[in-house]
Amino acid sequence: MAEKKFVEEITPMDVDFAQWYTDICKKAELIEYTSVKGCLVMRPYGCAIWENIQKILDTEFKRLGHENVFMPMFIPESLLQKEKDHVKGFAPEVAWVTMGGSEPLEDRLCVRPTSETLFCEHYSNIIHSYRDLPRLYNQWVSVVRWEKTTRPFLRTREFWWQEGHTIHATSEEAIAETEQMLNVYADFCENSLAMPVIKGRKTESDKFAGAVATYAIEALMHDGKALQAGTSHYFGDGFAKAFNIQYTDKENKKQFPFQTSWGVSTRLIGGIIMTHGDDRGLVLPPDVAPVQAVIIPIAQHKEGVLEKCRELYAALSKDFRVKLDDTDNSAGWKFSEYEMKGVPCRIELGPRDIENGECVIVTRHDHNKETVPLSDISAALARKLKEVRDGLYAKALENREKHTHCCTSIEGIKESLARDGDGFIKAMWCGDEECEDKVKELTGVCSRCIPFEQEHLSDTCVCCGKPAKHMVYWGKAY
Amino acid sequence: MAEKKFVEEITPMDVDFAQWYTDICKKAELIEYTSVKGCLVMRPYGCAIWENIQKILDTEFKRLGHENVFMPMFIPESLLQKEKDHVKGFAPEVAWVTMGGSEPLEDRLCVRPTSETLFCEHYSNIIHSYRDLPRLYNQWVSVVRWEKTTRPFLRTREFWWQEGHTIHATSEEAIAETEQMLNVYADFCENSLAMPVIKGRKTESDKFAGAVATYAIEALMHDGKALQAGTSHYFGDGFAKAFNIQYTDKENKKQFPFQTSWGVSTRLIGGIIMTHGDDRGLVLPPDVAPVQAVIIPIAQHKEGVLEKCRELYAALSKDFRVKLDDTDNSAGWKFSEYEMKGVPCRIELGPRDIENGECVIVTRHDHNKETVPLSDISAALARKLKEVRDGLYAKALENREKHTHCCTSIEGIKESLARDGDGFIKAMWCGDEECEDKVKELTGVCSRCIPFEQEHLSDTCVCCGKPAKHMVYWGKAY
Repeated sequence: MAEKKFVEEITPMDVDFAQWYTDICKKAELIEYTSVKGCLVMRPYGCAIWENIQKILDTEFKRLGHENVFMPMFIPESLLQKEKDHVKGFAPEVAWVTMGGSEPLEDRLCVRPTSETLFCEHYSNIIHSYRDLPRLYNQWVSVVRWEKTTRPFLRTREFWWQEGHTIHATSEEAIAETEQMLNVYADFCENSLAMPVIKGRKTESDKFAGAVATYAIEALMHDGKALQAGTSHYFGDGFAKAFNIQYTDKENKKQFPFQTSWGVSTRLIGGIIMTHGDDRGLVLPPDVAPVQAVIIPIAQHKEGVLEKCRELYAALSKDFRVKLDDTDNSAGWKFSEYEMKGVPCRIELGPRDIENGECVIVTRHDHNKETVPLSDISAALARKLKEVRDGLYAKALENREKHTHCCTSIEGIKESLARDGDGFIKAMWCGDEECEDKVKELTGVCSRCIPFEQEHLSDTCVCCGKPAKHMVYWGKAY
Repeated sequence: MAEKKFVEEITPMDVDFAQWYTDICKKAELIEYTSVKGCLVMRPYGCAIWENIQKILDTEFKRLGHENVFMPMFIPESLLQKEKDHVKGFAPEVAWVTMGGSEPLEDRLCVRPTSETLFCEHYSNIIHSYRDLPRLYNQWVSVVRWEKTTRPFLRTREFWWQEGHTIHATSEEAIAETEQMLNVYADFCENSLAMPVIKGRKTESDKFAGAVATYAIEALMHDGKALQAGTSHYFGDGFAKAFNIQYTDKENKKQFPFQTSWGVSTRLIGGIIMTHGDDRGLVLPPDVAPVQAVIIPIAQHKEGVLEKCRELYAALSKDFRVKLDDTDNSAGWKFSEYEMKGVPCRIELGPRDIENGECVIVTRHDHNKETVPLSDISAALARKLKEVRDGLYAKALENREKHTHCCTSIEGIKESLARDGDGFIKAMWCGDEECEDKVKELTGVCSRCIPFEQEHLSDTCVCCGKPAKHMVYWGKAY
């Protein structure tokens, strides 16, 4: 039987970052294109990563008291229009259903770009008394935004996400929820995805359409560009007023409740690729890797090798997501296949290892080899996977630090970008939208967020020289 | 604090079955209507039932080697048209997207009513050699069919389901897959949903659009109507030819592969309601019940009661989905609330029980009470839940037997329906579509399936008197 073709080499990151990214998406079999622009197939390997992300987050959402629901995928145009800022933000990029069967619809329907309006309609049906509050809802669905430029995971016309929607009696409670969920996202990105993030507030110009405040986590990719990895919005009672959602409080008075929404999407998979990937392919953090360790028999035709590998598989598969590749492809082919797929640990087991009662564990991200006794393999693999996560995080943090610069003038920003390439710029800002626009116009970087962890870099705005209000992270963004 | 309103009574089943059904959907908080006809909100309790169904089936699908994927929700009109029978079956009932943002689309897109065409397009991109076969895929998504008449769970314009799609080198393998998945569905319905089903093949006129053969499981509801609870289709190589999917076999020859698809939907929740529900509300089979047992403190203001209930909750929640209702609503209110929600077991614990070291378990479906020692509560609850499943199954089977009649003439069918109301009619059939239509026209029942377990009721067709080919289940259907 002819050996399966070797994984073809991918474009090196330094030669063409965008092509490197697309190569990984395709060659690691995460996605495939379809005949509809911006609508992709999420293949089994990509889907399995998303399922692992879902499992971890869904467990945490539920632990915090959230319940899953499913809203319809269609929003009548008249419903979308109820909150003025919201419709202004989303109407230009929605897909419209105008026909049902062979009949034109009276009120055309948009395919949800996000579901605030649907949740509001539902709240107005089910919330009457203070006893009906809070409601802490979430849904795992796909949404549609008719983008002009599309890229796998980062910007697609249809994408999978979760959207949390909550409604509370007081603004304090709603704000606490908004902050709590941003922290859930940040902890998940840092712990499970080994992706360091900056937590902060978006400027007014960058808020979600209809929000009082938008909080976000921002990560820095390999190429120095920023990725907004998750957002959490506080709505005040704006939506409640627009949709006439009212409840009777304990004193029997009518009150408007306060709302939030928050979401992360398959964009996180794009973040994983661009934070950890290298020129050999994908590198996956162990918590979300579909296969955490692949067992590769060495000289598998030799007596006893496959048997021992199967024993090892049986022992490890109780606690880990393990795969044994006993196909007749060469060991070399298998090495590059699972490197491309970013499997965190490779376990090599050959006749000599068996004789010595040991095996070799190779970690994907740093290519380190360690020989460990078979008697202790489960503990050793657990330790290695922990090392991988910590190693990935340290490397990503180091990269971010290396590409973060403090600037106190427009010229300083320009010089920094020219000298060190794209990255985060930390600079003071007066809070004026005009200055925000001007920084972008003059230097190309836009505000990413006003971080919760403020630093005092100087007294004055990097643009106008007036007194500064905030330290802001600036950058080019996906 | 005023007590929450008692659950209002629902319409008795015998008075108005359709209203009884809708009452349960609403009062058990499974769904809520929206302003778009046929597009419903699946509320937390309904969603949790679906999540439990998903978990059990998804685990089984994966155990059998299937992998999850996500296909896009949009199908270009040109793609839908490639398989002629398929487009004829589905085009009249699809929702069409004709605008993206403010621009009209060149090739309008339908929102998937089912995804065969998308899978075929994908297969044609990824399948080249016999080494690429089989592919065993599944997706958990919602689909849209623009139905005129809609009812919660049974027929909605958008509904959630799973659709399995597989592709194989040989027809034998594909047929085996079709049969295997029908068996998976049947076992799931009988074991986990306690819903007896008839396995069989659909007649030619009732096949899925584009299939060579459609297999189905049929269940009988309380009102004597049949519910198609799941289907599994064998496609032969028809789709492969229409989409030009070819692979190179071991002899280096081009071959067309063979395909299947199979699905169950949230319709199963409708089946649960109409198989097990009663005039006090929903009755849930334990495997999919969001809450398997609710602990209700009796005289909860008395010292020690709530503490003991909390202990009990902590002990049981390790192995069961348990809820403790320690709100200040009365015990009576709680009883009817959890009866409405169909919680399989209620555990009552009051001062006297505590003194005696026991508690009372009441089973929802038969209102039986049993006093069990607290020391043995975990084993007792496991036993009770098993009893509930078995009791539900026996009751449903008995109901089906009672409403299944063998007939050997059209007059016999009419008499049976007039005498015993709706139900399954078993009768012989010559295999001619004309007779099938005539039976329906004359008696109102249509063919449900040709069961795998054939019986010889007579030698001749119930309609034309010519030699009979098959015994067929006939009935009125949802």
